[in-house]
Amino acid sequence: MSQPRTIALDAMGGDFGPVVAVAGAAISLERHPGMSFVLFGDRASIEAELEKVPKLAERTRIVHTDTVVAMDEKPSQALRRGKGTSLWLTIEAVQKGEADVAVSAGNTGALMAMSKLILRPMAGIERPAIAAIWPTVKSECIVLDVGANIGATARQLSDYALMGAAMARALFHVERPTVALLNVGVEEVKGVEEVRQAHAWLKSTELPLDYRGFIEGDQIGQGTVDVVVVEGFAGNIALKTAEGTARQISEYLRAAMRRSWVSQLGALLASGGFRVLKNKMDPRRSNGGTFLGLNGIAIKSHGGTDALGFASAVDLAYEMAQSRLIARLAEDLEAFHHKLAATATATATG
Amino acid sequence: MSQPRTIALDAMGGDFGPVVAVAGAAISLERHPGMSFVLFGDRASIEAELEKVPKLAERTRIVHTDTVVAMDEKPSQALRRGKGTSLWLTIEAVQKGEADVAVSAGNTGALMAMSKLILRPMAGIERPAIAAIWPTVKSECIVLDVGANIGATARQLSDYALMGAAMARALFHVERPTVALLNVGVEEVKGVEEVRQAHAWLKSTELPLDYRGFIEGDQIGQGTVDVVVVEGFAGNIALKTAEGTARQISEYLRAAMRRSWVSQLGALLASGGFRVLKNKMDPRRSNGGTFLGLNGIAIKSHGGTDALGFASAVDLAYEMAQSRLIARLAEDLEAFHHKLAATATATATG
Repeated sequence: MSQPRTIALDAMGGDFGPVVAVAGAAISLERHPGMSFVLFGDRASIEAELEKVPKLAERTRIVHTDTVVAMDEKPSQALRRGKGTSLWLTIEAVQKGEADVAVSAGNTGALMAMSKLILRPMAGIERPAIAAIWPTVKSECIVLDVGANIGATARQLSDYALMGAAMARALFHVERPTVALLNVGVEEVKGVEEVRQAHAWLKSTELPLDYRGFIEGDQIGQGTVDVVVVEGFAGNIALKTAEGTARQISEYLRAAMRRSWVSQLGALLASGGFRVLKNKMDPRRSNGGTFLGLNGIAIKSHGGTDALGFASAVDLAYEMAQSRLIARLAEDLEAFHHKLAATATATATG
Repeated sequence: MSQPRTIALDAMGGDFGPVVAVAGAAISLERHPGMSFVLFGDRASIEAELEKVPKLAERTRIVHTDTVVAMDEKPSQALRRGKGTSLWLTIEAVQKGEADVAVSAGNTGALMAMSKLILRPMAGIERPAIAAIWPTVKSECIVLDVGANIGATARQLSDYALMGAAMARALFHVERPTVALLNVGVEEVKGVEEVRQAHAWLKSTELPLDYRGFIEGDQIGQGTVDVVVVEGFAGNIALKTAEGTARQISEYLRAAMRRSWVSQLGALLASGGFRVLKNKMDPRRSNGGTFLGLNGIAIKSHGGTDALGFASAVDLAYEMAQSRLIARLAEDLEAFHHKLAATATATATG
């Protein structure tokens, strides 16, 4: 790619547009001074925000566009009239090699549809997936698919494993990331056929990852593995359920601390500890769903996030841009598909 | 049923056998003095425990058996040699009308297989489901299926809705429980075909429940509805993920409170509040998976639970025994299946 570490930002996406996109990029630039940016959207509003952060302004190029994809627009509609919108141009910048990674807080469905159309799936990839960063007691892990597709064949689950491993290599700097398939633990039902077949392939094939077999939902947050693979329906439900449980416990905790003045005093003294906890549980820290499996990377920030949350998505984009993720993943996928085909031929003729 | 409010207990199930089963039953009896029990298992060990709790001993009949299903036995194996085991006899007591509900902390797969064989599915029910009690910020809700089956047709999901509503009626004492289907929120993928078809049926059919449409995973713990319906693979993953997240946050909290002596002092003062929180989050409070859809109710306690946890499962059994759940559910299911058939005929001939 011609300009390494350049991030394309859809400045008009999300609930707050350039206000959050520019402030978020500025925070991330403090942490990673090597980055530069291309911002797509309304020049006047972007410039107004950039004036507040001259350091960022120096490293930013603005590409003006009047048109924007609305947050509630249907993906099909966005695709039809999407050309030239800030979201479209942001993704196109990656396709043209003008940026390494695209980030938007805009319409998820439109982002997925446009990314697929513009960046195209990698060779041999049937379905791209959305990967989430999941906080664990140890540090973080990657969970995919969290909702790009419903259902997954054994082949698709195996591809997700390689895609997740490539991302873990980029983010966690381990050469052979540990990978597990999410499954259910009831003894009588031993998992879906697709999951079992993927398990057999991942176990028996020589791959650039450390396959650890099945895990259950309660192991995700324990940090048992670097990458957790699951089809998108269950993956999305797991992600949302974990978010809901965290919120629920925060509410319990707040109510519990309000119940007497002694508790209130205690909570005040322990406020340092509570701050650490709050920080640990802050959903803004792991904001950013990564769209994987295309010839280029697009990251979706939460639409309602603030500058800190958007900065996390930009941090993530930077880490991904640092690695040669796509090129390496392309090699891994090709080798894997080759082995699968060889096994199939051997089985057919053997 | 001949002896109302009689609970059949597998005294040999779980990691601790009669020690936990008897002590748990004694705690539950304090709360519900109307209950009586039939305990199945080794007479000498049961009697040794019952000596400690004379009030329970008065209301308990022991049925001796030497044979036990091992915790790690395969369901198929347990079925073959299962006749006469404490688990088998416990379930059979319900089938014979000698007890209202069966409770065991034993082998889940064997419990499911034996319950299906002995109690048989209700008329029109293709697949029984496991329902879990899920703590919410408001109180509790019921989630099913949490792992009896993998996948579910629209018809099965609709049946789950009626089964869950019957249980909510028994436990929460509401005549028209609120019910929702668990779905994913990504805009481009609008849910599985089965979930959409079940949605259409539940929305358009006159049913003894208040159908509220789709919810996402983060709404379960908010107590948005009384009953959450989902197929067993995603349901099991959601349940385990929520448990794991709760444990993860407890670990964060403990670590955060240990980080300075001021935090430690604060935590000490706030210990009343922390106790309330701990109690709220105590998994023993909602111990007990209910096997629904058979001509009789079997409840699975967690195998590793203590007396308090087992008492929750017995409490649950008592509440279910109090209601005429099965009879009412049979009527509801018949009416629903009749309406579905009528609609199908109308569509076919219309």
